[in-house]
Amino acid sequence: MLQELEDRLTQDLSSGDVGKLSQLAAEASIPDLIGVVEHIPAKRAAVVFRLLAKDRALEVFEALDAGHQADLLDALRDEQVSSLFIDLDPDDRAALLDEVPATVADKLLRGLPRHERDLTAGLLGYPKGAIGRRMSPEVVPIRESRTVGYALDLLRAREDEYETLYMVPIMDETRRLVGVVSLRDLFTADPDAQVSEIMNAPVSALATDPSEDVARQLLAINRIAMPIVDAEQRIVGVLTVDDALEIVEAADTEDAARHGGHEPLRRPYLSTPVMSVVRSRIVWLLVLAVSAVLTVQVLEVFEATLDEVVVLALFIPLLTGTGGNTGNQAATTVTRALALGDVWNRDVLTVLWREARTGFLLGAVLGALGFVAATAVYGVDIGMVIGLTLVSVCTMAASIGGIMPIIAKAVGADPAVFSNPFISTFCDATGLIMYFMIAKAVLGI
Amino acid sequence: MLQELEDRLTQDLSSGDVGKLSQLAAEASIPDLIGVVEHIPAKRAAVVFRLLAKDRALEVFEALDAGHQADLLDALRDEQVSSLFIDLDPDDRAALLDEVPATVADKLLRGLPRHERDLTAGLLGYPKGAIGRRMSPEVVPIRESRTVGYALDLLRAREDEYETLYMVPIMDETRRLVGVVSLRDLFTADPDAQVSEIMNAPVSALATDPSEDVARQLLAINRIAMPIVDAEQRIVGVLTVDDALEIVEAADTEDAARHGGHEPLRRPYLSTPVMSVVRSRIVWLLVLAVSAVLTVQVLEVFEATLDEVVVLALFIPLLTGTGGNTGNQAATTVTRALALGDVWNRDVLTVLWREARTGFLLGAVLGALGFVAATAVYGVDIGMVIGLTLVSVCTMAASIGGIMPIIAKAVGADPAVFSNPFISTFCDATGLIMYFMIAKAVLGI
Repeated sequence: MLQELEDRLTQDLSSGDVGKLSQLAAEASIPDLIGVVEHIPAKRAAVVFRLLAKDRALEVFEALDAGHQADLLDALRDEQVSSLFIDLDPDDRAALLDEVPATVADKLLRGLPRHERDLTAGLLGYPKGAIGRRMSPEVVPIRESRTVGYALDLLRAREDEYETLYMVPIMDETRRLVGVVSLRDLFTADPDAQVSEIMNAPVSALATDPSEDVARQLLAINRIAMPIVDAEQRIVGVLTVDDALEIVEAADTEDAARHGGHEPLRRPYLSTPVMSVVRSRIVWLLVLAVSAVLTVQVLEVFEATLDEVVVLALFIPLLTGTGGNTGNQAATTVTRALALGDVWNRDVLTVLWREARTGFLLGAVLGALGFVAATAVYGVDIGMVIGLTLVSVCTMAASIGGIMPIIAKAVGADPAVFSNPFISTFCDATGLIMYFMIAKAVLGI
Repeated sequence: MLQELEDRLTQDLSSGDVGKLSQLAAEASIPDLIGVVEHIPAKRAAVVFRLLAKDRALEVFEALDAGHQADLLDALRDEQVSSLFIDLDPDDRAALLDEVPATVADKLLRGLPRHERDLTAGLLGYPKGAIGRRMSPEVVPIRESRTVGYALDLLRAREDEYETLYMVPIMDETRRLVGVVSLRDLFTADPDAQVSEIMNAPVSALATDPSEDVARQLLAINRIAMPIVDAEQRIVGVLTVDDALEIVEAADTEDAARHGGHEPLRRPYLSTPVMSVVRSRIVWLLVLAVSAVLTVQVLEVFEATLDEVVVLALFIPLLTGTGGNTGNQAATTVTRALALGDVWNRDVLTVLWREARTGFLLGAVLGALGFVAATAVYGVDIGMVIGLTLVSVCTMAASIGGIMPIIAKAVGADPAVFSNPFISTFCDATGLIMYFMIAKAVLGI
């Protein structure tokens, strides 16, 4: 479906058949349009985009992440840029402004009507990474002493000002948050009841809290939105579930990148210049390569042993590889368990003990097989060395892989930073030391 | 906050102070309770759980994933189990039934009132992995010829039967889906208008579509819910955003596990027996170790070269490690881009060309440094070998790492299966061949 739409669009783009192109754009479903606009180069996407009816264009644009949005703005004509920008919610606008160059951001902000500019500027006043920057500031909380009927009338009269009606914060006389009520509850309640009678206990967050934490919390509690308050518990905004999702998706992309040993790209992969891709990877690769010099030094220490029994060299990649794999298994499991809240920092010793046993058992199975195989080909001495090394390396690698993410989190670092490639490199050096110590002991050299 | 609550709960649990425990449980916020119940052992969680008011207990229970729910059911008394189970939405019930042993599932189903049992059994009739099993079947669509006022009255009268009121599917005379309307739109429209005048074009999915794909689509289009239809476009249910989130979270956990080279755990990490953790990892580890035997064989072929220039052995972990890291960087970037829809299968050649250039540039930087460093210590010949090998290995590893996830996806496999550990092992063997070929050529042996 998606590929077919792209093919037909591309064909009409090349042939310059605007009539057919408009018809195609008008008939395509919103998800297909989102998929294609995310995939084709921004210049082409802009052409398709201009042919869409305004409300459809806005719906597609809102569903793009800020990276794609910034790319697309670049390629659109000025008048369409400012009209799209005005129609965005203030929080989406703030996210987009973080992605474009400062001069473009200034120009975009100047194009806004005063009220909208004030709303957006208010958000930009919060520090980067705070949820205050990503919340919807358009929230008119309702006093707890009001009736359900009053609340419904107010919402109906001013509905176009709000990003969500589905969760309404309730405040006391001093604007402090005292509860929340869903549109569903208002809608089915007795219109003469006071909102204080039907409201629920609020779950809120501070505007200065880190946006990723707040977003994950909202997603964890299965609600549609969450009020955001200042230090005096006064309501300053609302975080909606779709914005929480975008925040978490961006954070996950960053984590995935770090797990893979590089920095995240700021733009969609295919439209990122190769030099930027290189920049996102080179620092990590250099740091890892420099740490790997440790393995050269370890081997140098044992060069005489290697020279004497050159067959030991044959197993180096197998042993370091297995250690790296075991360490990664443990690290992935624990990193995910930390992210889901199944493991806390204080569980570090429990995790260490669990992973040491797991690693030992894994090593015992691999070691037994390694012993048999190596004995068959290279004799029982080498067999012993390989078997014992596998047991030791697996036990060590699982233990280190298991506690590394917890240590990283405890010292306030991104657990992903100490992740797969880092653990592999660390296990390589430690594993080689174990290997040659065992070899020297068993072979008596 | 969370840790403090857990400490106080644990303390009261140990001292058996039920009065203090009840008070604590009654005062704690829902997110804190969720956090603690996810973290402490199920037996302890069950004690806390029994002290919660019924609606709070249900809210906490619904927010847990099916693995935690199954653990907790195990530890709760029968009467509380059946009361919780009856209050769950049919789709959450179906997800939970997939996690418990068949005998428990039967018993739970038998405890349901007839109507609820029918709803749940209907869901279980769809194949595993289909969205039909995870949707809410309680949906009374409204005919397009009805008025807004009629629709609002109907929703108000029967609101307790639906999981969501916020998206209402609209059908024609033959129950075919023709549109959707939000509660917000109904609520602000003229009560005498026909729903067909205010409805929007629907975005729907087939009940037999894979649940992960449908869930990701719903999250991508920023809507609260999505109608699910049968092959004749008749409305059979609704997927809500919170259920879509749970599906995507479970799928991400599975992907993270496979990326780390093991199978996902079915239960929270700390409550999974060590033997189950071992089982989730051993097969992958064995397969990878057996593939790594290839590296032993490659080295055996070049044993004479190694024997002659033993210094070549020193660089083996550094070179294979760097190849593995470069391959992983490319694989993570492309896997994520595939998941986000930024890269499609048909882009395989574009990706190959981009990654080959990226790998070459990375290799050129590392190779230049490697040349200088190795020349300083081991002479210019070894320096040349290391430098040239780094360039070749990085180019090869980035290219392979980049296209592997696309190939995996194209042949219908989970891209994660061909991921980090697999790519490392593959790059190890290929990299070693390159290394010794270059060494033989440069050193003239």
